Amino acid sequence: MGRVEHLLREALADVEEPLGAALRRVLEDGKRLRPALVLLTGLTFAAPLDPFYSLAAAVDMLHAATLIHDDLVDGSPLRRGQRTLHTAWPWEASVLAGDYLLAQATSLVADLGQARVLGVYGAVLRTMCAGEIREMLVIQGRHGSREDYYSNIEAKTAALFAGSMEMAGLLAGAEEGQVAALRRFGRGFGMAFQIVDDVLDLTGDEAQLGKPAGSDLRQGLVTLPVLCYLERAEGETLVNGVLAGERDEEQMRGAIEAIRASGAIGAALEEARAYARQSQAALAALPDNAARRTLGALAGYVVERER
Amino acid sequence: MGRVEHLLREALADVEEPLGAALRRVLEDGKRLRPALVLLTGLTFAAPLDPFYSLAAAVDMLHAATLIHDDLVDGSPLRRGQRTLHTAWPWEASVLAGDYLLAQATSLVADLGQARVLGVYGAVLRTMCAGEIREMLVIQGRHGSREDYYSNIEAKTAALFAGSMEMAGLLAGAEEGQVAALRRFGRGFGMAFQIVDDVLDLTGDEAQLGKPAGSDLRQGLVTLPVLCYLERAEGETLVNGVLAGERDEEQMRGAIEAIRASGAIGAALEEARAYARQSQAALAALPDNAARRTLGALAGYVVERER
Repeated sequence: MGRVEHLLREALADVEEPLGAALRRVLEDGKRLRPALVLLTGLTFAAPLDPFYSLAAAVDMLHAATLIHDDLVDGSPLRRGQRTLHTAWPWEASVLAGDYLLAQATSLVADLGQARVLGVYGAVLRTMCAGEIREMLVIQGRHGSREDYYSNIEAKTAALFAGSMEMAGLLAGAEEGQVAALRRFGRGFGMAFQIVDDVLDLTGDEAQLGKPAGSDLRQGLVTLPVLCYLERAEGETLVNGVLAGERDEEQMRGAIEAIRASGAIGAALEEARAYARQSQAALAALPDNAARRTLGALAGYVVERER
Repeated sequence: MGRVEHLLREALADVEEPLGAALRRVLEDGKRLRPALVLLTGLTFAAPLDPFYSLAAAVDMLHAATLIHDDLVDGSPLRRGQRTLHTAWPWEASVLAGDYLLAQATSLVADLGQARVLGVYGAVLRTMCAGEIREMLVIQGRHGSREDYYSNIEAKTAALFAGSMEMAGLLAGAEEGQVAALRRFGRGFGMAFQIVDDVLDLTGDEAQLGKPAGSDLRQGLVTLPVLCYLERAEGETLVNGVLAGERDEEQMRGAIEAIRASGAIGAALEEARAYARQSQAALAALPDNAARRTLGALAGYVVERER
């Protein structure tokens, strides 16, 4: 992972200070989940790792770019306990910094020199942006359905996990069936990861989350645990009140408590576990070794984590 | 060019209405200069044109994406006589719409399946973004030198023209020397084009420009004709007053009149013509035919145009 960290720092060498330092902090702050999956795929196929370092850095940079623009567009003040870039800097810097990271990620992928990898990368980018626009224009402002929720997290999160694994498989020279299995692994992993993220937003405390609990709900975003709750609680007024715009602290606390006390959290986590199991099942198509077992263990960890 | 127009419209098929319609208007509004240069390069080498249509659409889309983000960051209210996207829509839509066009452009280039072409594309993107960041952090707020000006227009404008021609040369299977010549052509073309744009901003009237004359000066941006003027007019107070922040209408009119009446416009145009000639000279390395002659004529047109 040290090699990946080095590539991430190097990518910011052209950015004038002190913005460069601010972007380094943004990049340093990630969990490196996507890079870990990419490197483990290279190890699973016992492939020479050089191109995997570049791909791992590229997907993490693309992820950071989308976080910067999303936090800006959503007006999120905090991420992982730190002020978001657009609150610490003029917002214009966030537009340009996101573009710059996107450019760097594209360059790293281009330099891999593999046409099919490029195609997957382009498709991921398109899916993510189209999803964000759809969320802004269509989903926001209506209470949302399961269909909205799933299509949203598919575009926002799962597409990048699926594409990262597919690109890693292509780099590893895996067979077509294995590339498809890696894609399935990534999609299931990403869906599970996002559902758990959305659960933690309701069950975590501010210290764990690095932002107040219930941030999504405060933004009027209806996530899976909220949907599970509403399906179980016809005619309730706390959460429906929040969604209708009553967002004072007392109402928020009451709504979060009501969701926590219901079976909604368990039901949402059950859906996440189902995706994680799909994801693990896809690994059967890959060579059986320690790296593959670590991929499987990560898919298990992702649904049991507490932050 | 009909094929290029079709690809541009197609790229927006996924964007929900009514944002799709707004973006189509942005894309319809271009001069199509970059696509024309790309197609003419294909014709010069008598190459099969299919990939050139995609490249032409991609560079125009990239151009539109950067205009959307730049207008947003600069707070420009008008472009080509139309309200800019961020004044007609919530600004968040401009962030995401720019990202989406960038994603589409990247995808089109990736699908060409030629790693060197995507490498050039990535480098262009990086240069443009780094240039914008540099302008925001370093150049803005100081009066600027020729060096600032030239490094700024090189990154902002010439890099995309140079990269477009280089990518077209690679697609055409041109020899290395010819690819380098195409790059030189594009760079000279782009420098000439931007200098003339900056001159027209001072000499044009509002109807021609689609925005008030002297917009750059109003934003405190010191362009080449202003630099030429200041070099000739030691101790003057009109333009220096505007640059120091006195931007009432009378001061602005006086400043613009003073620049127009000086030899500065002619001197700046002379520098543009020198770039156009460099650009035309680079064409000698290419097969001599009608398409190449059209490229040369366009380089001549770009410095003589009045809008």
